[in-house]
Amino acid sequence: MVQWVYRFGDGRADGQAGMKQLLGGKGANLAEMASLGLPVPPGFTITTEVCSYFYEHNRRYPDDLSAQVLAALEFLESSMGASFGDPQNPLLVSVRSGAPVSMPGMMDTVLNLGLNDQTVEGLASRAEDPRFAYDSFRRFLQMYGDVVLGVDHHLFEEALDDAKRHAGVTLDTELDIASLERVVGEYKSIIKRETGEPFPEDPLKQLWGSVGAVFSSWMTPRAVTYRRLHDISGILGTAVNVQAMVFGNMGPTSSTGVAFTRNPSTGERAYYGEYLINAQGEDVVAGIRTPQPLSKAMSEGGGLAGQALEETMPNAYAELSKVFDRLEGHYKEMQDIEFTVQRHKLYILQTRTGKRTASAALKIAVDMVDEGLLSPEDALSRIEPGSLDQLLHPTLDPKAERNILTRGLPASPGAVSGRLAFDADSAERRAAAGEGVILVRTETSPDDIHGMHAARGILTARGGMTSHAAVVARGMGKPCVCGAADLEVRSGDKKLRVGSEELGEDDVVTIDGGDGSLMLGEVPTVDPELGGDFARLMEWADAMRRLRVRTNAETPEDVRTALRFGAEGIGLCRTEHMFFDDGRILAMREMILATDTDGRRAALAKILPMQKGDFVEIFEIMAGLPVTIRLLDPPLHEFLPHSDDEMERVAEATGTPLARVKRRTSELRESNPMLGMRGCRLGVVFPEIYEMQARAIFEAAHEVAAKSGSTVVPEVMVPLVGASKELELLKQRIDAVAAQVAEEKGQQLDYLVGTMIEVPRAALRADVIAEHAAFFSFGTNDLTQMTLGLSRDDSGSFMESYLRDEIYPADPFQTLDVQGVGRLIEIARDGGRKTRPDLKIGICGEHGGDPRSIMFCEQTGLEYVSCSPYRVPIARLSAAQAALKGRS
Amino acid sequence: MVQWVYRFGDGRADGQAGMKQLLGGKGANLAEMASLGLPVPPGFTITTEVCSYFYEHNRRYPDDLSAQVLAALEFLESSMGASFGDPQNPLLVSVRSGAPVSMPGMMDTVLNLGLNDQTVEGLASRAEDPRFAYDSFRRFLQMYGDVVLGVDHHLFEEALDDAKRHAGVTLDTELDIASLERVVGEYKSIIKRETGEPFPEDPLKQLWGSVGAVFSSWMTPRAVTYRRLHDISGILGTAVNVQAMVFGNMGPTSSTGVAFTRNPSTGERAYYGEYLINAQGEDVVAGIRTPQPLSKAMSEGGGLAGQALEETMPNAYAELSKVFDRLEGHYKEMQDIEFTVQRHKLYILQTRTGKRTASAALKIAVDMVDEGLLSPEDALSRIEPGSLDQLLHPTLDPKAERNILTRGLPASPGAVSGRLAFDADSAERRAAAGEGVILVRTETSPDDIHGMHAARGILTARGGMTSHAAVVARGMGKPCVCGAADLEVRSGDKKLRVGSEELGEDDVVTIDGGDGSLMLGEVPTVDPELGGDFARLMEWADAMRRLRVRTNAETPEDVRTALRFGAEGIGLCRTEHMFFDDGRILAMREMILATDTDGRRAALAKILPMQKGDFVEIFEIMAGLPVTIRLLDPPLHEFLPHSDDEMERVAEATGTPLARVKRRTSELRESNPMLGMRGCRLGVVFPEIYEMQARAIFEAAHEVAAKSGSTVVPEVMVPLVGASKELELLKQRIDAVAAQVAEEKGQQLDYLVGTMIEVPRAALRADVIAEHAAFFSFGTNDLTQMTLGLSRDDSGSFMESYLRDEIYPADPFQTLDVQGVGRLIEIARDGGRKTRPDLKIGICGEHGGDPRSIMFCEQTGLEYVSCSPYRVPIARLSAAQAALKGRS
Repeated sequence: MVQWVYRFGDGRADGQAGMKQLLGGKGANLAEMASLGLPVPPGFTITTEVCSYFYEHNRRYPDDLSAQVLAALEFLESSMGASFGDPQNPLLVSVRSGAPVSMPGMMDTVLNLGLNDQTVEGLASRAEDPRFAYDSFRRFLQMYGDVVLGVDHHLFEEALDDAKRHAGVTLDTELDIASLERVVGEYKSIIKRETGEPFPEDPLKQLWGSVGAVFSSWMTPRAVTYRRLHDISGILGTAVNVQAMVFGNMGPTSSTGVAFTRNPSTGERAYYGEYLINAQGEDVVAGIRTPQPLSKAMSEGGGLAGQALEETMPNAYAELSKVFDRLEGHYKEMQDIEFTVQRHKLYILQTRTGKRTASAALKIAVDMVDEGLLSPEDALSRIEPGSLDQLLHPTLDPKAERNILTRGLPASPGAVSGRLAFDADSAERRAAAGEGVILVRTETSPDDIHGMHAARGILTARGGMTSHAAVVARGMGKPCVCGAADLEVRSGDKKLRVGSEELGEDDVVTIDGGDGSLMLGEVPTVDPELGGDFARLMEWADAMRRLRVRTNAETPEDVRTALRFGAEGIGLCRTEHMFFDDGRILAMREMILATDTDGRRAALAKILPMQKGDFVEIFEIMAGLPVTIRLLDPPLHEFLPHSDDEMERVAEATGTPLARVKRRTSELRESNPMLGMRGCRLGVVFPEIYEMQARAIFEAAHEVAAKSGSTVVPEVMVPLVGASKELELLKQRIDAVAAQVAEEKGQQLDYLVGTMIEVPRAALRADVIAEHAAFFSFGTNDLTQMTLGLSRDDSGSFMESYLRDEIYPADPFQTLDVQGVGRLIEIARDGGRKTRPDLKIGICGEHGGDPRSIMFCEQTGLEYVSCSPYRVPIARLSAAQAALKGRS
Repeated sequence: MVQWVYRFGDGRADGQAGMKQLLGGKGANLAEMASLGLPVPPGFTITTEVCSYFYEHNRRYPDDLSAQVLAALEFLESSMGASFGDPQNPLLVSVRSGAPVSMPGMMDTVLNLGLNDQTVEGLASRAEDPRFAYDSFRRFLQMYGDVVLGVDHHLFEEALDDAKRHAGVTLDTELDIASLERVVGEYKSIIKRETGEPFPEDPLKQLWGSVGAVFSSWMTPRAVTYRRLHDISGILGTAVNVQAMVFGNMGPTSSTGVAFTRNPSTGERAYYGEYLINAQGEDVVAGIRTPQPLSKAMSEGGGLAGQALEETMPNAYAELSKVFDRLEGHYKEMQDIEFTVQRHKLYILQTRTGKRTASAALKIAVDMVDEGLLSPEDALSRIEPGSLDQLLHPTLDPKAERNILTRGLPASPGAVSGRLAFDADSAERRAAAGEGVILVRTETSPDDIHGMHAARGILTARGGMTSHAAVVARGMGKPCVCGAADLEVRSGDKKLRVGSEELGEDDVVTIDGGDGSLMLGEVPTVDPELGGDFARLMEWADAMRRLRVRTNAETPEDVRTALRFGAEGIGLCRTEHMFFDDGRILAMREMILATDTDGRRAALAKILPMQKGDFVEIFEIMAGLPVTIRLLDPPLHEFLPHSDDEMERVAEATGTPLARVKRRTSELRESNPMLGMRGCRLGVVFPEIYEMQARAIFEAAHEVAAKSGSTVVPEVMVPLVGASKELELLKQRIDAVAAQVAEEKGQQLDYLVGTMIEVPRAALRADVIAEHAAFFSFGTNDLTQMTLGLSRDDSGSFMESYLRDEIYPADPFQTLDVQGVGRLIEIARDGGRKTRPDLKIGICGEHGGDPRSIMFCEQTGLEYVSCSPYRVPIARLSAAQAALKGRS
């Protein structure tokens, strides 16, 4: 016989905390608490298997469920000394849903179940309070009507309002018994009218109705959507908890409250919570009465006003404190607890892991290690790596006032204020003059990079979480709000319209890239704290992880940031970003506009010293840590101007006829630039470009080595290789430059040449490509685009549909597509290592900072991940968690 | 001891015909002829291994080569009864290169080697003709100076001209002995002056000089380029043939000539050749004297004038005829033979397989089967499948005069004439009025499709062999010349400039898509002959092949053409081409411009009957053969207008505000449309589109089945699937439509749903995709683009470099990239068949008509290939060859 029903109460239980899959979180914890001897009102849990059965059998129950429920009810009756439906001494119960994971969107609670025209009298006499009994009945009817029978709750509220108006009172609590009796009658009429059936007086019928409502709520669209959004799958269904009612509203010696065992905002080790005397649970959250603080420390701390439970009910408080300590010690987790005191007697109704802020989570985890509750490994596993992002950026001062103008997408975290700049040039000019600016654009393009660098934050009216602005801003670690559709950006007039407001260059705004809000004026921010608990957690993570963590960075500022965040090398130094600077773009454009090799060489000769200077600075900062430099990658047209105006300026500045600028721009235009003349194709066709870059790298390495006295071993990375011959050819040319530089300097050079694996063919041909490559770095952005045939810039129009329809489990540009791209990575790893067992393999690109993707990298045996500077701590923690998971 | 030298002559030889790799084609055939007892002047071959050794050892020879050459020379001397360098009776030799495959660009021939100031006198007395001897010496000096010593040949020609001027004569043959002696002296001075060394009088020194020159010519840039262009690899090098000289210029009883054993233009079984009395080989090709015909039949046939060899030297002719028959019978191939008659005695100097036209090749192969020389299998192997293309289209009448204006790329074969049309609309209008037009555009776009359909041929100024115009024209089987860079197309004025000519709408031109020429006026053409030999060859091919051959077609005209060419089904019916028709594009645009589902449904309702009509017509024509219909694939913006003018027209025609047309057009613009919102992504996001198409297909199938009484089983193909869930979802919707239609018609429907595998991820996930697919069709165009990260439209700018550097062995858009794309195809095949052993797998896309790619399809075990109608015969033959190769 299958056990469909699990009982708890009287110091014992059929279940325990480990049975969340079967009993749901609430049921398992109630069982656990009962077993621990805590004062839990007795009850029973109908398992998630029943829910599963229910959906597999056209919404019918197992045949033997009814008998098991009745037997459990008898247990309840005997435990409580009351009987279901007994007019003298009625047993009342609550019915609550409880899935294995916490999940809003489902039916929550029905209280006071068991009341009817007879039992309400029994309750009145047992409680010696007829008003309380009728008020309970009224509440039960409303809840049952709403959540079980689906009657519009406004109808009940209107009837209650009518009753108050009729009685000439304003608060529910002012209604007298007669009024309440009338309300009860009115509620029943509403139910009859709306459902066509009378309210079920039979408590058993009430019970089955509620159980069915809980199971049915499992499949409501809202619940289904929630599960999809939160990646919840592999769960049977929800459980149903039926529990004897206890009452916090039985007069002044009763109360009800919620509490955290630690402060959920700060993580401070102090009880934290609120309560109300003579109230039921829903009153605490309803906000009609102001709850009072739990402890004296809290009221002294200046939080809630009113007398603390510690003062009003010192015995209950003392008992509660013991329960808190017992539960936290037992679960080794900060607990979120609901309690009720019924006529001096304390009951614990629920306990669960408490939600907390990122900084609280960090403090609690570290404190619990110090308290001996947790091992460092446990502490590491407790922190959601992505949450660290909140700790690395300035955040809005929680006490500050905010005038929110509109919201966009939270594209890159951090809060920052500044005056509006409407184009990249003015942003750069004004920033150079010491002004703090926010660059606002309809959308950004590679032409805006210098402005994005100069600005404190970026705001756009169009584009999604993976738009140019969002990706670049995250890479730079700059706050960014994008896709704020209410904005009308008029760059020509230098005006920003949002609703009725019109802002100009002198107006100050604040953006919060963590929540996507745009605020008028300067809102004060709080700086992040990277020492203390954060540093300790990172230390543990570093001791635990196998994967190395590098960074994707090329500006000295980013490189320094990444080092501060613990990067162990540069995995991707994108040389093209270095060409967008005002001084260089001109020479770059000359190079592109040149009609022959000599012309290109002349222009490249101007860039060489600047490029070399970049590398010198990076090698100096990195002081011996590995640096992987990717040779020029983007299509040349990205460097050319697009508007007529700009083209005229370029023609003038480079001394090129305007017609040639236009012709060249048009020649370089491509149907699918992603798949066009870029990456190593540039290197194959224009050897002089990569030769200049190789020279800059080797001369810089030599110079820094000579100055510092230690070796600098640059790693030269060739992008977009698809055929081994490409790499073979380019490596020969790079080797030739290295030999030349070595001869000129009279000193041998150490260096590695490797490649990005970002074209599917490269993964398939990894065995032969590895003959020429000392390392592979998976460029998972492009590899994803090509493997899935999906342009990141264009996927916005359908990605939402795709995620809704669960075609991809997650946005493949945020979380690595393990089944497709991952398979290619494995093929490449196997092929590469077959040819070259010591091949160094890593991953660069956005996925290098994504926890689930890092888990894959660990399982796949890569050597390192590389990510943007602000993702480095996340990657360190994720790598540690992945290593721990691999061991368990 | 390695044998570096192989002798032949006197009825025996060290080598034989099968040793082409070692002896080169010429040497192997000389050995074979000698063994057959044919009158071959004796000689020896220095092997290709020596060439390979030469390059591997810094241009030195094997140590024992010299001794082997001297021994072979002794054999020659004893065979000829003459001695090398003997002043009385000198042995003279020719030195010729001879690689395993015929290859221009290398040193060809040095004749009369062995002559010097002494031996020339011996030759004079033996030949009893001093003038002949000195003329031979003069020729030798010039050849040796030019090809061995690298002296500019103009210098020799100028000296000869001076001598003729001095002697007051105009022809070489008019120079007397004294003049020739002076020329000899002058030639020696030139050699001394230009090389700094005197002419080598020592015959052995001459011999080694010539041998070295042959080996060195193997690596000249021209030879290297030739090998690359013709995909010649895996060859050791060239051999060198040293052969005793015989003389066709020893007076009126001597002659020399070249002959084919059959007519190389028509394939007719008749000797075909020409000869000159008293001449050396070079005189026949030099064109100073007009050669005479070989046979009486030839002169009677109205070809060459003059007396036939058959008349002038009947004995030699009779002997030659026997040799021809012997050689053809021996090689079972039409032979190209060089011969010399020296004082009545016939010598055969060379035989090789003769080059021929495509139609000659066909006739010869079929005739030889009838003659019992070949089996049908042999005949099939003899025909280069690609050459069939020439037989399927009208060709220029070879007798017609041509006024060639310029040349472009031969993008799609066939010759056609018509008046110029400068835009698609006027092309369509004029064609509808019965006018034959050639559409001329700078380049074409999908907007031009209806004009391309209407035109007889297409001419563009820009774009390569894989440009839009070229690909679409080949698909349509229409003649196309593209990338004719000299053209200036002024669509606005309706003028075409080419050089000094300016043509307008009333001018007639002819294009030949087989050679890329553009001609003024109408040049008559000759229609192809598809019966007779062609039909017999195809019959043999069909009996031999395993692979089925389908076609990519959607217009009734194309479908009928493909059937005529032997297609066994439609492998790819592209529904989008059906939407470009004038009547439909409007409804399509309404659909795209609609802002909601209802608007889209209303527009689609207009398209439904037309689309259904298309399918009815196709099902009727195909009469039960399988038809695979691909649902809508291209990005929607391809259907929208691009210029302001067009947008205004569309706004008016569809009753849409202009602003919305513009906004929608801009919304739909994509950075990388290849990787954007297209294929099944359209189907996922706008369910109504595919639902309309599915309904059109099922209703049409039902209607045709009802009318014809036989079953129609449409194959519905979902494009661009990357995740199994896409196909699962869309298949559910297609099944639902099928169920609806079945219910409406009261009749069950048979149909298959399958998918294109064109996204790399689909290949990697084929095992799960196959759960929902009844068939896979590899869309190798897109699969190549994505696997290689290479946009076909954009690869023009670097593909040339890539092929030159041998990064890819062939253009991957023409010949399947077996190592990359092929590997994915294998992975998909294995995955798909694992899940569904009866999975039907084929290939559509350009590669389906490429012989090398078809070889891969055979080896990989696919079921069918599908190609454009005009490639169907090529595919049938290729499939047969592939099957034969698999058996051998």
